[in-house]
Amino acid sequence: MHYSSALQELIDQLGRLPGIGPKSAQRVAFFLLKAPADEVKRLATAITEAKANVSYCPRCFNFSEHGAECVVCQDPKRDTKFVCVVEDAQDVMAIERTHEFTGRYHVLQGAFSPVDGVGVDQLRLKELMTRVSEESVSEVIVATNPNLEGEATAALLVKYLKPLDVVVTRIASGLPVGGDLEYADELTLSRALAGRQAVAED
Amino acid sequence: MHYSSALQELIDQLGRLPGIGPKSAQRVAFFLLKAPADEVKRLATAITEAKANVSYCPRCFNFSEHGAECVVCQDPKRDTKFVCVVEDAQDVMAIERTHEFTGRYHVLQGAFSPVDGVGVDQLRLKELMTRVSEESVSEVIVATNPNLEGEATAALLVKYLKPLDVVVTRIASGLPVGGDLEYADELTLSRALAGRQAVAED
Repeated sequence: MHYSSALQELIDQLGRLPGIGPKSAQRVAFFLLKAPADEVKRLATAITEAKANVSYCPRCFNFSEHGAECVVCQDPKRDTKFVCVVEDAQDVMAIERTHEFTGRYHVLQGAFSPVDGVGVDQLRLKELMTRVSEESVSEVIVATNPNLEGEATAALLVKYLKPLDVVVTRIASGLPVGGDLEYADELTLSRALAGRQAVAED
Repeated sequence: MHYSSALQELIDQLGRLPGIGPKSAQRVAFFLLKAPADEVKRLATAITEAKANVSYCPRCFNFSEHGAECVVCQDPKRDTKFVCVVEDAQDVMAIERTHEFTGRYHVLQGAFSPVDGVGVDQLRLKELMTRVSEESVSEVIVATNPNLEGEATAALLVKYLKPLDVVVTRIASGLPVGGDLEYADELTLSRALAGRQAVAED
């Protein structure tokens, strides 16, 4: 026996989403069938609307709406001297949650990985260089992931930004707060050692 | 910073689904924004269509389409003498996956639990009794969950079906296949003992 076709189609479509297996898809489908019609309509509308209206910020390539600049670029309080370069729009949100950074962002939309077909031309690198030249940026903070592709991207950025008159910094790698020295991997621990800083007296 | 409103609305709506936390909602939302437009449209359409077309089978209260009988009730090969009573439509699917049962179902749409406001009138009990009388059913197999509410429901069914000329059976409780005696809880183990059956010689 199969489900009725409309129900099966719903389960199939839900099952294509990341992190949702066949069991979860079934559970969500049954939940939707039992939920009030207006709530379900809100979900369907949210999907359609987001897909139709959300595009990329023409300045930093973060997500934005109706082709306008994103909320960060539109914010007049943001310090345009600092540009934080990240791989994906999700990373913007992660940094925003710290409330530590008041500059703007630049989303590369990927990490340098020629094996996966992501070369220099697939990244928003040219656009970054134009911004650095035209927006009187004084510091570019490279916040790509501390993994192979992220480090390669960071190295690439350093190479490309060197000719321009701008300071390039990299976010620190080391032990996570609350972490345990005993269980840290060698690479993280050696990074933490290499990146040691003078302790200021109170 | 918040996301743009369309994106935030999408994340909020996805976060209301069962088993999808804030992180998963964000992940699914970003996935949808990057997915091809026609795939996303298929998902939105599947939700709307399922909600609009899927209703309950007028005979057994399983899910069906356009108010017609469900696929099981419509199947002429099904043995109408046997009715398997389950709590929810999900349970129909679970039993169907065993390919062991060839009769029809009856979905109670809940389990007897007066504390949660589910009394006799909230269950499709009257409809079951009408079916037993009119469809010449010879055996009702009670396949409610082996928990407090499910057992209470089973007891209720036995009481209500007693006056009718029908055999009422209950699915077996015991150790799950592949389970370990050592780790079984006392209740399951005592059920397994109580439900012991004679071993037939080959």
